[in-house]
Amino acid sequence: MVRVVTREEIERLLPGLDLVERMQDGFIAYSKGQVVVPPPGELLFSDPPGDVHIKYGCIDQDDVYVIKVASGFYRNPELGLASSQGLMLVFSRRTGQPRAILLDEGRLTDVRTAAAGALVARHFAPSTVDRIGIVGAGTQARLQLLHLLPETDACEALIWVRNNAAERGFREAFEHEDRVPTLHFTRDIREVAQRCELIVTTTPSETPLLRAADLRPGTHITAVGSDTPIKCELEPEILARADIVVVDSLAQSEHRGEVYQAVRAGAIDRRRVVKLGHVLVNHAAGRTDDGQTTVVDLTGVAVQDIQIAKAVIEALGSTA
Amino acid sequence: MVRVVTREEIERLLPGLDLVERMQDGFIAYSKGQVVVPPPGELLFSDPPGDVHIKYGCIDQDDVYVIKVASGFYRNPELGLASSQGLMLVFSRRTGQPRAILLDEGRLTDVRTAAAGALVARHFAPSTVDRIGIVGAGTQARLQLLHLLPETDACEALIWVRNNAAERGFREAFEHEDRVPTLHFTRDIREVAQRCELIVTTTPSETPLLRAADLRPGTHITAVGSDTPIKCELEPEILARADIVVVDSLAQSEHRGEVYQAVRAGAIDRRRVVKLGHVLVNHAAGRTDDGQTTVVDLTGVAVQDIQIAKAVIEALGSTA
Repeated sequence: MVRVVTREEIERLLPGLDLVERMQDGFIAYSKGQVVVPPPGELLFSDPPGDVHIKYGCIDQDDVYVIKVASGFYRNPELGLASSQGLMLVFSRRTGQPRAILLDEGRLTDVRTAAAGALVARHFAPSTVDRIGIVGAGTQARLQLLHLLPETDACEALIWVRNNAAERGFREAFEHEDRVPTLHFTRDIREVAQRCELIVTTTPSETPLLRAADLRPGTHITAVGSDTPIKCELEPEILARADIVVVDSLAQSEHRGEVYQAVRAGAIDRRRVVKLGHVLVNHAAGRTDDGQTTVVDLTGVAVQDIQIAKAVIEALGSTA
Repeated sequence: MVRVVTREEIERLLPGLDLVERMQDGFIAYSKGQVVVPPPGELLFSDPPGDVHIKYGCIDQDDVYVIKVASGFYRNPELGLASSQGLMLVFSRRTGQPRAILLDEGRLTDVRTAAAGALVARHFAPSTVDRIGIVGAGTQARLQLLHLLPETDACEALIWVRNNAAERGFREAFEHEDRVPTLHFTRDIREVAQRCELIVTTTPSETPLLRAADLRPGTHITAVGSDTPIKCELEPEILARADIVVVDSLAQSEHRGEVYQAVRAGAIDRRRVVKLGHVLVNHAAGRTDDGQTTVVDLTGVAVQDIQIAKAVIEALGSTA
């Protein structure tokens, strides 16, 4: 019988999951061509405005396939609801029978994105990180910081926020967390560029925020916010000057994300771009010294959804 | 909160639904361009062999959108499971929140296909049908006959079966039905062609079964079995000689079904083909006299899934 798993049950399971390891295995399988991920389905609505994405796929040797429905309905907050909604379905890859329905309301997408950020930091952050820079103050900004804490010794975080309300929201979200770095806030993006060794960008900006001229050598940037053909948080020159430019998906980088923008601007040659999964296996293709500047552009791939859904159902199985 | 509806609950609700009316409304909306139905998603597996189809869409003025996952895993019977598996998801089109998960195991697809057959018979069968012809003896063959009974006065049905086991299975399925016509069985497809005024074909055949030379003028044929680029139950000449050729989906008829086969064989001109929804509004485009031979080619469209899912959740709402 199919198991229906509520958001509350998922929340209880999440702290026990080693999601960074799951993301690592997923990106490696993906880069080796061992993952079937057809193009996502899409429904667009105008009144009220909303978009629905259906991502699905299967890892070659797995015994499940996964379908994720994720939507953004941007007037939901007026109704007291989160904009992001969604669920994940896990089916047997041998019989087609549904095994689990994860009513995560988009939570697993948020978490798997943050777990990928942690994985990237583990492999690309310079050996010393005194201060983590976070660009943006939304849900993903907070989750990225939380997931980065176990990966570095940083005792400070500097968060670029647009206004006081965003700063307050961010501070409040961290009030109940155990291991919290000292939080600093700034409205000046240059300060983040100049003072942080590890920067994660998480905004839906459509114009570049970080500038190449402001960055110090040796900085690592994980770009998470841009996942469409128009969103862009990094000046293309940042990618031009970087020693290493990495993407989670070469295919997606042809239409979306920072690499797409930089190639389109003529700032970089597509042939320089390396797959994340490749670096995870061949460490020599990644950061080899603290002077290197690195950029990892994450647009999000369905293998992450597959991996987190599997982690949840395996944890369920062991608690059942 | 999302409602999870079991197969048993769905079975209890089905007899109370007017699905023929729902299909009619759906096909009309579809033919008027009022339905958003993106291309289906697909996953194909080889070991064990299985295919998964993800169909989804929305009718313009509706407050829900629907996603259907339907799979065929052809070795399931070895495990005592049905080959067809699946479920339907109903979401709010205003907020993206899931409203209902219908764990129908493919049952609603079977039923909506049969309800479309009934709708077609209502509009295309000649005024007198003494004998219904059914080509095939599987689940869809039985459902088509059941759904045709209220649409005609026929007291007999003639079923083309390949072997005794198929005949036995068909007979047994009708043992507990209330209003059953006299069932006759034949291994000779010509007998169906020559003796039935209303014929429904339901097999996965890849070579034509019914021949034009065997058919009587005035016959109506609903072709249900062929829904891929290679399946084909009707000799193309049948469509060439037919007075009216109708499809549920013009778009799909460009790649699959009987019309696809007949156009490819050069037997008919695509411009002769009429949309089902058009005929349902403009009766003059349909059968206007009992001498006409008509063919309706159904490959199945997502609007049918949307319509049956809505019927189920509305019935649930009224019983809650």
